[in-house]
Amino acid sequence: MFKKILIANRGEIAVRVIRACKEMGVQTVAVYSTADANALHVQLADEAYCIGGPRPQDSYLNEDAILTVAVASGATAIHPGYGFLSENAGFARRCRECGVVFVGPSPEVIERMGDKDAARRCAKEAGVPIVPGCNLLKSAEEAEREAERIGCPVLIKARAGGGGRGIRKVERAQDAGKAFTEAHAEAEAAFGDGECYMEKFVAPAHHVEVQVLADAHGNVVTLGERECSVQRRNQKLLEESPAPCLEGRDDIRERMYEAARNLARAVGYEGAGTIEYLYADDGNFYFMEMNTRLQVEHPVTEFVTDIDLVKWQLRVAAGVEFPYAQDEIMPAKRSHAIECRINAEGPAPDYRPSCGTIHSMHVPNGPWVRFDSSLYPGAVVPPYYDSMLGKLIVRAGTREEAIRKMRSALTELIIDGVDANTELQLDILSNPEFLSGIYHTNLMEHLYED
Amino acid sequence: MFKKILIANRGEIAVRVIRACKEMGVQTVAVYSTADANALHVQLADEAYCIGGPRPQDSYLNEDAILTVAVASGATAIHPGYGFLSENAGFARRCRECGVVFVGPSPEVIERMGDKDAARRCAKEAGVPIVPGCNLLKSAEEAEREAERIGCPVLIKARAGGGGRGIRKVERAQDAGKAFTEAHAEAEAAFGDGECYMEKFVAPAHHVEVQVLADAHGNVVTLGERECSVQRRNQKLLEESPAPCLEGRDDIRERMYEAARNLARAVGYEGAGTIEYLYADDGNFYFMEMNTRLQVEHPVTEFVTDIDLVKWQLRVAAGVEFPYAQDEIMPAKRSHAIECRINAEGPAPDYRPSCGTIHSMHVPNGPWVRFDSSLYPGAVVPPYYDSMLGKLIVRAGTREEAIRKMRSALTELIIDGVDANTELQLDILSNPEFLSGIYHTNLMEHLYED
Repeated sequence: MFKKILIANRGEIAVRVIRACKEMGVQTVAVYSTADANALHVQLADEAYCIGGPRPQDSYLNEDAILTVAVASGATAIHPGYGFLSENAGFARRCRECGVVFVGPSPEVIERMGDKDAARRCAKEAGVPIVPGCNLLKSAEEAEREAERIGCPVLIKARAGGGGRGIRKVERAQDAGKAFTEAHAEAEAAFGDGECYMEKFVAPAHHVEVQVLADAHGNVVTLGERECSVQRRNQKLLEESPAPCLEGRDDIRERMYEAARNLARAVGYEGAGTIEYLYADDGNFYFMEMNTRLQVEHPVTEFVTDIDLVKWQLRVAAGVEFPYAQDEIMPAKRSHAIECRINAEGPAPDYRPSCGTIHSMHVPNGPWVRFDSSLYPGAVVPPYYDSMLGKLIVRAGTREEAIRKMRSALTELIIDGVDANTELQLDILSNPEFLSGIYHTNLMEHLYED
Repeated sequence: MFKKILIANRGEIAVRVIRACKEMGVQTVAVYSTADANALHVQLADEAYCIGGPRPQDSYLNEDAILTVAVASGATAIHPGYGFLSENAGFARRCRECGVVFVGPSPEVIERMGDKDAARRCAKEAGVPIVPGCNLLKSAEEAEREAERIGCPVLIKARAGGGGRGIRKVERAQDAGKAFTEAHAEAEAAFGDGECYMEKFVAPAHHVEVQVLADAHGNVVTLGERECSVQRRNQKLLEESPAPCLEGRDDIRERMYEAARNLARAVGYEGAGTIEYLYADDGNFYFMEMNTRLQVEHPVTEFVTDIDLVKWQLRVAAGVEFPYAQDEIMPAKRSHAIECRINAEGPAPDYRPSCGTIHSMHVPNGPWVRFDSSLYPGAVVPPYYDSMLGKLIVRAGTREEAIRKMRSALTELIIDGVDANTELQLDILSNPEFLSGIYHTNLMEHLYED
């Protein structure tokens, strides 16, 4: 195992990784921006270095500063968390060049999966169902022809896309040319890569993702699935496992798992990764993308499988063999887990981001309640980063109990000093569509409709 | 399941039970003393009633007031927690007479196990090994004769004993008469029952206890064991599961489990209960007593078995059948759990009790870290009750990892406003004897020796 690692992140995920390291006897090096000088991850780490100003590009995306600290402090690995540099193949390559282990798959795999068009082709070759569509579009005319062929509605998507940018929905084939031109320009501006492809718009659909863990010894296992259909503007708000839309459909669930393992094997994956699917009510599922990093919602999987994903990320990166065969992984049949993302934001319809200083807190606790957060009384929530204050995760014997447990936990949670979306989460948890277990990615669009 | 229950307790265990009820959709009625008007259990319950002054006999032991509230509020069951009325057969009988379910075994079983001499005879009849000794002593002369026969050192113990009262250790047979007279008088004064028996003093020994759960349908299962050898003046300080002293001794462990199930079956036990053993390094174990209630340290078992004991107490009391066979209960082989009791007390050697108002708190969190407590910023720790502020519980893959995880969690824990024994717990967690896994009930006596 590594003697010392650097955590190239901030907030709850930096705290999560540092705590795992303490448990494993691994020394920790934190890096931080000037806005985070008093942050919890800085306080908990064995060493901490300021690497720049508050803007991400000056600090948490500052590759030079991070690599300098890693080498100077004697850290032999870097855990990138999620976001920031976690899916940056160039950074992973520079780590390798500096003789520092990047905790994640190889730069080549990150690159291949980061190119959405290449990932789609990979999936297809590995026998994973993909959304009907076409490869990279060469012109507006081709876009119109393909839209006609595939059948509207379709999506035009930038291969370098992310965060909802470089995507256009097309309702009529004759609009596809204009949409292609726009998406191309937007992607060129945002990612320096304007290339786009086209997919059928599958709706209504569920967002179901499968957790994969692969080691350097050829073991590839899946650790159950998560349903992440509660989203607002492509941002997940609530995740659960098992996926209620797969209730009674173990056949489909097994096919999803198998496809995920096949794809991970096909690309030579190592580490923890997630394969996202669109699942339609007709029983078909389609590969969406692979996230080559730890997922925000990984605790949901930890609760139903009893496996610590961060510790296994580190072990796998250090060459340790994963000891459990697929059928030894807890089959998640006795429990249901839910995560609510607690965001610093005001109420609907504006959801205005909030920041400030935490005066006082009361965090629910007890069996199978977990709050992953970097908050403490006196902590500052700066305006520069994403608005997530923490993640509240519960586990119970059934979905019904887990929902009641989450409601009870949310009702107990008090965070004084910033706005938090606990009321919104309580509204989701009492929405009839959500309660039915059959809800789609459009749930949030009509949560507050009559 | 019950529609509404009353929780006849305070502090962390009242909060624990209320949270379980919320998860099960059961309405909750809290009772409280005037000292606890702003306590967390009062805030969390659906209804709360003041039942008297701060002294336990005026409130939490006030049977009339509690039963009146139960009947008036429409609660159909009472959860007694631990301590207070939890092992009071008379109260359990009055509950039955009022048509209220007492969450625990029958008054007859409580009575039989509460009489330590009768319990000892029960255990013997059920084939459970007991410490060599004798039944009730009739005179000082008999005490001396029996001490001679059994062989010193011996213990003279009050059958109604508890909390270390009515116990005398005898080093030489000729001192047994005087010790008997003293123990008899002390027990008469403390419990209104002076009857005493004698047992061989087994030392060095481990305190190992087995968790039992029995339903009304004849199912009796054991849920692993806990080692509770870290004690100061018969008060447990730290508990762990599995018991490190049984490492590699699955044969003995199995015999302990089987004996526990046999005893529970023999007495017609229903509910959650604990059978405490003395375990000597020669491989022999001896029945000590049975606790007919939820144990403070139950979270340790919940962490290694993934079974919620409070929910199962309530379900079993409502007549629900326990669904898992003995071999379906998670065999606790992948994990190790430790609990540290966080007490409001100063440092060694005085351990002076502390009370006051909590100004600010930081509670560690993350995967497999749990803090059961009724504290919140502004909460008052009154001087009238036991000094436990909360219980910090962790679980990890191995004992070594669990110890590191607990150290890390204790280091994070901040409770401003009262003294807490976190430094003592850290000292235990770095004691070489404790770390070796082979430590006895006398560990605390030489913790601070050279």
